[in-house]
Amino acid sequence: MMQRYTAREIWDMEERQSPRAVGCGGSVVLGVDGGASNTVCVCIPATAAMDMSPFADDGPPLPILARAVAGCSNQNSVGEDRARETLERVMAQALHKARRRRSSVAAVCLAVAGVNHPIDQHRMLDWLSEIFPSHVKLFVENDAVAALASGTMGKLHGCVLIAGTGTIAYGFTSDGRDARAAGAGPVLGDWGSGYGISAQALTAVIRAYDGRGPETVLTNNILDFLGLESPDELIGWTYEDQSWARIADILPVVVESAVGGDEVANKILHNSVGELASSVKAVVQRLALSGEDGKDLFPLVMVGKVLEANKRWDIGKEVIDCVTKTYPGAYPIHPKVEPAVGAALLAWNAIASELDDDLRTAV
Amino acid sequence: MMQRYTAREIWDMEERQSPRAVGCGGSVVLGVDGGASNTVCVCIPATAAMDMSPFADDGPPLPILARAVAGCSNQNSVGEDRARETLERVMAQALHKARRRRSSVAAVCLAVAGVNHPIDQHRMLDWLSEIFPSHVKLFVENDAVAALASGTMGKLHGCVLIAGTGTIAYGFTSDGRDARAAGAGPVLGDWGSGYGISAQALTAVIRAYDGRGPETVLTNNILDFLGLESPDELIGWTYEDQSWARIADILPVVVESAVGGDEVANKILHNSVGELASSVKAVVQRLALSGEDGKDLFPLVMVGKVLEANKRWDIGKEVIDCVTKTYPGAYPIHPKVEPAVGAALLAWNAIASELDDDLRTAV
Repeated sequence: MMQRYTAREIWDMEERQSPRAVGCGGSVVLGVDGGASNTVCVCIPATAAMDMSPFADDGPPLPILARAVAGCSNQNSVGEDRARETLERVMAQALHKARRRRSSVAAVCLAVAGVNHPIDQHRMLDWLSEIFPSHVKLFVENDAVAALASGTMGKLHGCVLIAGTGTIAYGFTSDGRDARAAGAGPVLGDWGSGYGISAQALTAVIRAYDGRGPETVLTNNILDFLGLESPDELIGWTYEDQSWARIADILPVVVESAVGGDEVANKILHNSVGELASSVKAVVQRLALSGEDGKDLFPLVMVGKVLEANKRWDIGKEVIDCVTKTYPGAYPIHPKVEPAVGAALLAWNAIASELDDDLRTAV
Repeated sequence: MMQRYTAREIWDMEERQSPRAVGCGGSVVLGVDGGASNTVCVCIPATAAMDMSPFADDGPPLPILARAVAGCSNQNSVGEDRARETLERVMAQALHKARRRRSSVAAVCLAVAGVNHPIDQHRMLDWLSEIFPSHVKLFVENDAVAALASGTMGKLHGCVLIAGTGTIAYGFTSDGRDARAAGAGPVLGDWGSGYGISAQALTAVIRAYDGRGPETVLTNNILDFLGLESPDELIGWTYEDQSWARIADILPVVVESAVGGDEVANKILHNSVGELASSVKAVVQRLALSGEDGKDLFPLVMVGKVLEANKRWDIGKEVIDCVTKTYPGAYPIHPKVEPAVGAALLAWNAIASELDDDLRTAV
């Protein structure tokens, strides 16, 4: 199994390979998405004809040469050494599967959670430059940037809204300015996230039980879902393991309860729509993405399980309706490719525009 | 130093003491308050003339024979063995200081955090009965009960509101029924607590920084207080150590900001007043403490740093005003003694009423 080899062992194999064993399909681009639970690396051809507009609903399927998956690579969570070993291994595996050497890599984009400051970025770039030959173009971004790129086919323009366990809105102008909103975690009011919605639902159950809030079917539905007998037991359940993802898993129960007509659940979801839309609007306003007349077109990329369409209570659609009331030029996109592909497209796009520049300079 | 002796060693000394070395002031009562940060044991005379009404503002000072302090004894936090060793040691120390033996103890009341179910209570009572001679009356309660008793001089009637790092409302009818509200911790919506107020203030800073919320002086005041440069750094600060008490320590900054006229801080405090009052009202309503006409007198004991009078923004006073609008018979009490004394008074009261019963039976 691939998983048992370290990056070092794979690089050693790479060196021992005869040139003929290595694929001759030309140079490649690596895209890495490192999130809270796992890390994905994809390898795409550097020369792929990717005439793909972010606004086009069809187009040629993107050729993915190889895909590898590893564990968490957020250095704030697992430490720098383990994060780096994971990142290097997942890249080595993807290259090995694609039958390419590091020398055939044209560009790498690492988009990882926990990279927030230029200082994080520079440390990561220094480390990458020790792994790859000097001709390889290297990019390091926050994972939200890859999510944006997954919807815009690598162009850094527009706003992405991520709402999974956590939530963040992140945007770019076409001249490279960026802004973010939310993404501050559960203690600091990310109420539109899966965690936020679930915590509000649990709170509503406790309030109803205490006599401080209205009765709600959330009580029976959540107790059933968790296999508990009484709201008393919710307190113990909540604090026995404070993993944010574990709390966020209650989300479908809240949506079902709202679909069933429960007022408390509906109010929680409507609040969350307001919170998520306000994050997007804050980014759009700060970057003036909608132009001077407020009607410029810009991509609004929607990512994460909170925003995935539930036919009967579609949080994502409600957020879009709310944003487009203020910014009619917001063009919603539900990405068809995963964020790792977004990262690869980002690197691909950057080298393609350099090529364009070179061509223009030559003319 | 006392601290170096284990409970076992102190009990051994007790057995070796000559009868003359032991005080001859008669039997005593022990009260123990075991909270999140420390454990206090007081020793009072069982025969003290305590003609103290909960509604009286003066009266004879309560004779405290001895007081001992130890670390945390919440078994959910430090484990059962360590919790028991701590509780036994603090009782042994108090008795030793009071120059009494276990045989001179008339009653013990342990009021400890983490005791929520009858099963916790019974395990603790079994364990206590192995330490003390069989004639000793034993009581085990949640620490909120001792806080109530510290305001009512040991009578279990009325409602206590605790708002420190966390918050809970707990009440008793004179015929022994009880009810609680809140006390479910920060994830489950204890918004009126020190933690809740502080977390809302931190959230307001992030929202202002994102452009999702109004500007507020909380930003400068909290950054100054924490020695941080930018709201960006608040995220790292918040999650580097998720101790609830550490977050709750921001409370005075929020109160100062509200006193200075900041609208965001004022709104947070007003919300918290509403939350705390609603916890009290839920308990009063469920227990019908205000009687059929809604005007019966009952003690409302106020405990914890959130409720301690700040002359210029008095959260406790606002809560009382809010409760008495609905329940004019609520009689606010700020205890003059600590909860450990409340626990001792509770045990004292229980044996005194048994004596009364015996006297009545004799007549």
